[in-house]
Amino acid sequence: MIDTIFSHKSIRKYKNTPVPENVLNEILLAGTRASTTGNMQVYSIVVTRNDEIKEQLWSAHFKQNMVKEAPLVLTFCADFNRFNKWCEQRKAIPGYDNFLSFTTAAIDALLASQNVALEAEAHGLGICYLGTTTYMAEKIIDILVLPEGVVPITTLVVGYPDEAPGLTDRLPLDAVVHYEKYKHYSKTDIDALYREKEDMELTKKLLEENQKETLAQVFTDNRYTKKDNVVFSNAFLKVLEKQGFMNNEM
Amino acid sequence: MIDTIFSHKSIRKYKNTPVPENVLNEILLAGTRASTTGNMQVYSIVVTRNDEIKEQLWSAHFKQNMVKEAPLVLTFCADFNRFNKWCEQRKAIPGYDNFLSFTTAAIDALLASQNVALEAEAHGLGICYLGTTTYMAEKIIDILVLPEGVVPITTLVVGYPDEAPGLTDRLPLDAVVHYEKYKHYSKTDIDALYREKEDMELTKKLLEENQKETLAQVFTDNRYTKKDNVVFSNAFLKVLEKQGFMNNEM
Repeated sequence: MIDTIFSHKSIRKYKNTPVPENVLNEILLAGTRASTTGNMQVYSIVVTRNDEIKEQLWSAHFKQNMVKEAPLVLTFCADFNRFNKWCEQRKAIPGYDNFLSFTTAAIDALLASQNVALEAEAHGLGICYLGTTTYMAEKIIDILVLPEGVVPITTLVVGYPDEAPGLTDRLPLDAVVHYEKYKHYSKTDIDALYREKEDMELTKKLLEENQKETLAQVFTDNRYTKKDNVVFSNAFLKVLEKQGFMNNEM
Repeated sequence: MIDTIFSHKSIRKYKNTPVPENVLNEILLAGTRASTTGNMQVYSIVVTRNDEIKEQLWSAHFKQNMVKEAPLVLTFCADFNRFNKWCEQRKAIPGYDNFLSFTTAAIDALLASQNVALEAEAHGLGICYLGTTTYMAEKIIDILVLPEGVVPITTLVVGYPDEAPGLTDRLPLDAVVHYEKYKHYSKTDIDALYREKEDMELTKKLLEENQKETLAQVFTDNRYTKKDNVVFSNAFLKVLEKQGFMNNEM
């Protein structure tokens, strides 16, 4: 059993303490040991420690303070640029400018990110994933000067924790696991699976804060709205095109 | 340091031995501890042990024998179906039928999959990721009866190893890591980063087997061709549309 997996909590407050170079190298190496499609390693990790660049990234990531406060910001990118360059130098014609190749590269980047997250936590560091990476991909591309063939897909902030939150609640295992084939949820199933979450003190607090009748409305009306999702969907599709991943014809 | 991360090898030959129920539950639970966007847990894991369904999945996954031989086949899906149903039962109008929501859900599924992979390995199990999941998503949707809002994104086969391969080679850390901003590779950089890989005995064997002049050509001409990538890109985009993730207008 890997204790680090079961004790994971996202950390949003960090100490000023820098991460030693040897620890940084080990967590990055952990990333490279993750499975990768055909051993192509079609991803990149951009390590940002410089305060000026971190401030630009902070602005892109909806000004979440942890981006400025954590000593390390790691941007994980789907990356066919290096592989394409290698192909071109080796009399090989790459055909990786399409949506499938983006998906393949994004998978590589995400598996690597989770290895990095766990290895960081095993060294006493805290981490938090930034979902804003895909929303603001265009701006991040500008800040980090990502060339064609490279798309940021997730970001980890990493540093020594300055808070000690408890474990986050999760739905019962039954909610996410299906046996043999997908089970179709009845109304009663849904009620049962969400009951514990809805009964939590935290939920009551959120309903008050957000002035909503149900927890689901906190998500649909305030946190993850259709309006935002549509804007970010189109922005991200435009990014895929601009970075050369939407040439889906022979 | 998490030893399991640094000793990972993909396993393609499995013993007949079934995975005990308590071990299966623990590796699935490990999946649920991964970070998830806004704690929405917008993913599902379909566990397949039934021989008939495994045979259908085997056929979908390019008839790779490990799909039939491994006792467990775990299909990880981007899944907004459960969350949408919950919203609808709670007077909330979900706006998650768009490309951003698919991306968010796919990220959730992939982080969970890497936790499951590592926890399985910590129990002495072997794993292998199947890249064919996105190529053959439509067929997998039919086999596992995945409803609207659900798209398979990766698959793990899991079981007790019947082979003991060595660590897979990786490019030097320098190849995938960039500091502060993306570094642009010169021709000399690319030559240096790929030299070790190109000099391996395995590479010489691959060139002979594939009758190619360079290793890059083995990828572009035989393993991951533009022709296949274009076909699978369009098929996967069609799947996203069919499963209700391409309504990118208000």
